[in-house]
Amino acid sequence: MIDAGNSPLTTDLYQLTMLAGYHAQGMEGEAVFEFFVRELPPNRNFYLAAGLEQLLDYLENLRFGEAELEWARHSGRFPPEFIDYLGTLRFTGQVHALPEGTVCFPNEPLVRITAPLPQAQLIESRLINLIHFQTLIASKAARCVLAAPGKLLVDFGLRRAHGAEAGLLAARANYLAGFHGSSNVLAEPAFGIPVFGTMAHSFIEAHDRESDAFLHFAHAQPDNVVLLIDTYDTERAARRVVEIAPRLAAEGIHIKGVRIDSGDLAEHARKVRAILDAGGLRDTTLFASGNLDERRIHDVLAQGAPIDGFGIGTRLDTSADAPYLDCAYKLMCYAGRPRRKRSEGKATWPGAKQVWRRYDGQGRFAGDTVTLAEERAEGQPLLGEVMRHGRRLHPPEDLATIRERVAEQLAALPDPLRGLDDAPPYPVTIAPSLKALASRLDQEEH
Amino acid sequence: MIDAGNSPLTTDLYQLTMLAGYHAQGMEGEAVFEFFVRELPPNRNFYLAAGLEQLLDYLENLRFGEAELEWARHSGRFPPEFIDYLGTLRFTGQVHALPEGTVCFPNEPLVRITAPLPQAQLIESRLINLIHFQTLIASKAARCVLAAPGKLLVDFGLRRAHGAEAGLLAARANYLAGFHGSSNVLAEPAFGIPVFGTMAHSFIEAHDRESDAFLHFAHAQPDNVVLLIDTYDTERAARRVVEIAPRLAAEGIHIKGVRIDSGDLAEHARKVRAILDAGGLRDTTLFASGNLDERRIHDVLAQGAPIDGFGIGTRLDTSADAPYLDCAYKLMCYAGRPRRKRSEGKATWPGAKQVWRRYDGQGRFAGDTVTLAEERAEGQPLLGEVMRHGRRLHPPEDLATIRERVAEQLAALPDPLRGLDDAPPYPVTIAPSLKALASRLDQEEH
Repeated sequence: MIDAGNSPLTTDLYQLTMLAGYHAQGMEGEAVFEFFVRELPPNRNFYLAAGLEQLLDYLENLRFGEAELEWARHSGRFPPEFIDYLGTLRFTGQVHALPEGTVCFPNEPLVRITAPLPQAQLIESRLINLIHFQTLIASKAARCVLAAPGKLLVDFGLRRAHGAEAGLLAARANYLAGFHGSSNVLAEPAFGIPVFGTMAHSFIEAHDRESDAFLHFAHAQPDNVVLLIDTYDTERAARRVVEIAPRLAAEGIHIKGVRIDSGDLAEHARKVRAILDAGGLRDTTLFASGNLDERRIHDVLAQGAPIDGFGIGTRLDTSADAPYLDCAYKLMCYAGRPRRKRSEGKATWPGAKQVWRRYDGQGRFAGDTVTLAEERAEGQPLLGEVMRHGRRLHPPEDLATIRERVAEQLAALPDPLRGLDDAPPYPVTIAPSLKALASRLDQEEH
Repeated sequence: MIDAGNSPLTTDLYQLTMLAGYHAQGMEGEAVFEFFVRELPPNRNFYLAAGLEQLLDYLENLRFGEAELEWARHSGRFPPEFIDYLGTLRFTGQVHALPEGTVCFPNEPLVRITAPLPQAQLIESRLINLIHFQTLIASKAARCVLAAPGKLLVDFGLRRAHGAEAGLLAARANYLAGFHGSSNVLAEPAFGIPVFGTMAHSFIEAHDRESDAFLHFAHAQPDNVVLLIDTYDTERAARRVVEIAPRLAAEGIHIKGVRIDSGDLAEHARKVRAILDAGGLRDTTLFASGNLDERRIHDVLAQGAPIDGFGIGTRLDTSADAPYLDCAYKLMCYAGRPRRKRSEGKATWPGAKQVWRRYDGQGRFAGDTVTLAEERAEGQPLLGEVMRHGRRLHPPEDLATIRERVAEQLAALPDPLRGLDDAPPYPVTIAPSLKALASRLDQEEH
């Protein structure tokens, strides 16, 4: 596979053709672009900002190597002096952003880029590609976390994630949102994320007898005995677990858990729990998986199912009920003058912006105001400077810090926004200064 | 970014823990696994098989390097002899598959793997990850192709694709399904896919005057003049295009097209076409984009909109109305004995299988039969051997060949399946031999 994640050619051709236009005109003035979400899809009451770390990494390392310049030469699309210029291009700009794990809402910039126009333009495609996806997944994962307090939550989505990078970045987004780990092995060396996994149905089926499969696995992975019990008959398999437990205990092997992956999870869980308890396996936990999402988890728990943890895969890593966000990265200012796109249904608020958040007496979010960047408003400013002259101002945040932030943020959500159903919109006020600026720009001739 | 696409750790942990179990028991017997789709989601009447080329590449190159073995050592999860074994592991098996671009249906294997059990097991996660995604996207793209005969179709989805690899593989899947190209630059050096693109709204907004933006672009990219006309007022911009055309023509520059990205596309297209025609720009084409999918394209064309091409992005590259397929990779045979998963709602047809397709007098698909691999049935067998002893039997198919196959396949679809609405299911018969085998296996004790 081509390593798409590290290629500067992971961009839309129009970025390069626009750069050729800017270059020909010497348009190197300072531009401000912002990434924001236009509106919440159904089933989402907020977003969790995520993906900044990968964006900063991309910006620090962005350059056209010999292979990419060779492509540009052979494409016949660009004059030689522009290709030389591409070879020298680096990102030397400034980045303001919401810290990863910040709860945010429509019309609030997650990232603001201030840089010479060609640089700020070139990065658009990959910036959206990185910030959109992790924000999408973290926002879905946060709903699972809210639906299953105190439960072990593991990301099982790699196989149906949209490619390998999606599987890895989804593992990161899920973990920062509060999941306990992922089935994706690469998440551990890449990000220090705990990984989980024991066996699939094929392991059981490859053995002639289910009990042999259980015993063989326990001997091969004595510290990691979570047995999959739904290959043939779930309750019969649970009784087999009880039967083999004393023999394993005599060898010092503890059966940590069982997993159910099909059928009526609540009903199976109750029956299996009873079988395990009656068999003296009160410490053996019950883990469920199979077509789960936050609503199914909520329903299963509402039925009082004695389930200790959930593996959530496809519907999480594809954000299946809302597989994309209506987001954009738009020019807000060029050469000191604010700019505004006026296309029907897609108009933007002009100028570089800041978001201010107010809190109520209990420390809950009480409302946000979006202002011009140089203004002040009541509350706490959310966007902070994270990169200057193309270099990070701080070392990468570790995921533990981001996870703590998310836990605080979710605790500070107004109650209706914590539920799974659509709540009345959280109040985000557009400052009068912004509205006045937009009106003024609308009078201008272009 | 970690290069997830080329790491053998892009897998689920349970593959490795199962391998440790197989290794401890010396379970190296021959296994047959098949990848298939369980059922069609709403809005899909068929699938287009895709992703085989990337799978074969993965299988040929699969190995644990020093860094991955080091991770395994430090993880403390595996005994040293198993880690040594991992270091020697290669894929030495056999692959049968549908050629890429083959139309297929539920319960038909797209890929059959025959290999020593640990090898066939280990590859599961990435095999699904690769075949699922491209099949998903190609199947969506085929609907766009059917909805817009004779139109220029360009993939614009990179930015909201789920990561960089998804953006690149979606470009490939779209192109093989019949798209003309992609905005994703990397698709050209990676796969020889034509790339398209000119300008975004930011290019217009960065100029004080829209006409200056048009002229500057035309001078910088004289062979690629497609002007975006909806930044402020679409029809006014179209008149400006007419105004600048003679001046550009005098310089030998032809305005190839205009693009509309917002508003009522059919209405704008009619007005813009009239303005361009009245201004003598009959050769200037009209390209539309903005929240498109096959249904919106169908609607716009049904209104008689004079649009020559479409850029389709987010809804295509995320397959937004069906962002995943209900697919699986299941053990069908081990050590010469057929195997069957019986989990509720997820039972599989056992044994290694073949698919036979019949045709009617006009060469249209008339029905498929799924049999055991060693059986024969009426029609043409669809799965062919593509890899033996871990090596490809043929050089990679070029995308032109696959595109021709897709065109033939789509032409051979029964009429109801060519429409956008859900059609009665295409007849796929499970052979009596398979049903008898399944019944027999259900009697067995495990």
